[in-house]
Amino acid sequence: MQEKRPLILIVNDDGYAAKGLAAMVEIAKPLGEVVVVVPDRVRSASGHAITMNEPLRLENYKNEDGVAYYRTNGTPVDCVKLGEKVVLRGRKIDLLLSGVNHGANSSVSLIYSGTMAAAIEAAFDSIPAVGLSLLDYMPDADFSAVIHYGRPIVEKVLEKGLPPHICLNVNFPKVPTEEIKGIRITRQCHATWHEDLQERTDPYGRKYYWLTGWLERLEEEEDTCEWALQHHYISVQPVQYDMTAHQYIETLKYLEL
Amino acid sequence: MQEKRPLILIVNDDGYAAKGLAAMVEIAKPLGEVVVVVPDRVRSASGHAITMNEPLRLENYKNEDGVAYYRTNGTPVDCVKLGEKVVLRGRKIDLLLSGVNHGANSSVSLIYSGTMAAAIEAAFDSIPAVGLSLLDYMPDADFSAVIHYGRPIVEKVLEKGLPPHICLNVNFPKVPTEEIKGIRITRQCHATWHEDLQERTDPYGRKYYWLTGWLERLEEEEDTCEWALQHHYISVQPVQYDMTAHQYIETLKYLEL
Repeated sequence: MQEKRPLILIVNDDGYAAKGLAAMVEIAKPLGEVVVVVPDRVRSASGHAITMNEPLRLENYKNEDGVAYYRTNGTPVDCVKLGEKVVLRGRKIDLLLSGVNHGANSSVSLIYSGTMAAAIEAAFDSIPAVGLSLLDYMPDADFSAVIHYGRPIVEKVLEKGLPPHICLNVNFPKVPTEEIKGIRITRQCHATWHEDLQERTDPYGRKYYWLTGWLERLEEEEDTCEWALQHHYISVQPVQYDMTAHQYIETLKYLEL
Repeated sequence: MQEKRPLILIVNDDGYAAKGLAAMVEIAKPLGEVVVVVPDRVRSASGHAITMNEPLRLENYKNEDGVAYYRTNGTPVDCVKLGEKVVLRGRKIDLLLSGVNHGANSSVSLIYSGTMAAAIEAAFDSIPAVGLSLLDYMPDADFSAVIHYGRPIVEKVLEKGLPPHICLNVNFPKVPTEEIKGIRITRQCHATWHEDLQERTDPYGRKYYWLTGWLERLEEEEDTCEWALQHHYISVQPVQYDMTAHQYIETLKYLEL
C-alpha cells in the first residue's frame, strides 16, 4: 500500500510571477502534493490584511508537473483562507509554506510582512507553517542557498511537526551557499523603522509621496535574528500571536483607571 | 504664560466619514490640539499593511473647530507615518488615538485590526497610543458610552504616559452607558476565527466569494478580554509587538536543524 503523500499549501506576498514562488515550489515538490494559492499581483507589506469590502476572485491559472496553481485578487492571508476552505475544501493540510519572500522579514519587519501573516494565519488553525525570506528584494534574487538549506528545514518540520499555534520565521542572509555559517534559533530583534516620505509633484501639479525607510537595530545581543543574519547565519524564529504585554498587566494599575 | 496644549493625532481604519471618528474627535477636543489623518475610504481589517507599491496622496479636506482633517489613499498605518512625517513634520506627538472602531478588536481580531496596527505603529516610536473599539460594527452605532468612559481613560494616559513601546487596546461592550460594570485590565483571549467563504455567481457567470466568519473562544478564563466584554466590562489591554515564542526557543532543538 502506497503511503499517503503530505499535502502542502504554498502562498506568498510577492504574487504569482515571483521568482521566489518558483524557488518554494522547487523546495516543496519532492516532499508531497503541492497546491499554490497566491495573489494576482505584488502584495508586499500587506500585514495581516484581509478582504471584507469587496468580493474575492480565484482562478486556476496553471497546472504543471503535478502542481495546481491558483491566483486571487486577495491578500496573502486571504490566500490561506481560500486555500483551506475553497481549493482544498477542508482536506487536512500537513504543511503551509509562505514565500520565498524577496526581502527580509526579520525584527520588526515581521509585523509588516504579508509572508509571515500568512504563516501566522495557518498557526491559528494549528497547521504547521514556515515562512521563508531572503535578504534580497530584487526580482532576480539568487535563491539557490534558500533551496539548499531551506528544504531540510521544511522536511524536519514536516516530519516532526511544530508546537500548536507556533510557526517559524526563517530568514536567509544574502550570501552564496558556501558562505552560510549555519542555523541559529533566534528571538525578534528590537528595532525600529525610520520612515522617509519622498515628496514629488505629478504632471498635474499635485503632490504625492513614496514611502521608504531604513531599519535601526536597537540592540546588539547575539541571540537575535539581526545578529544571526549579519553574521551569515540562517535565522529560525518561533513565532506566536499573543500580543498582550503580560509584564504590564499588574503595573497598569498606576493609571488608576 | 499659557501652558502648551498636548498634541493629539487621531487616525482610524473606518475612513473619514465614519461616525466613530466624530466620536473620537469629541473625546479628544477638550484635551489638546487635535489633528486627524484618516483613510479616504473604509479600510477595515487592514492589519499592519503599508503602501509601498503605489504613491500616497494626502488632502487637507476640512478644518473645523480648530481641528485639521486630512485624508489619504493609504492604510491606517500609513496614516500614522504621514501624520508624523508630513502633516506634523517631526513635532512631538503627545498622544495617538485610533478609532473609535466600529466593531470588536478583542482576542485574535487584534491581529487583523487596522485600528490596533496604527496604535502599534505609534508604539514603535514610543508615542503613547490608545485604540478604542466598540462591539458594534453598524455605521450608526451609539458611541455615547465610549465618549463617557473613554475620555477619562485617554486623559489618564495623557497625564501619566505609558511604558515605552506599549499601547492600549480598549474595547467597549455594546450596552447602554449605565449598564457598563467597570474597567478590567485584560490579556488577549485565545480564540480562533472560523471562516465562511460564501460562493456566488456574478451576472457574467463567474464565481466570486464573500469572506465572513465567526469567532470561537478557546478559553473561558476571567482575566481575558472576551470574558470582560461578555460581562459588560470595558477591556483595557496592554499590547506589545514582540512575536517571538520565547518559550519555544529552547524546545525547538528537537527539530535538530
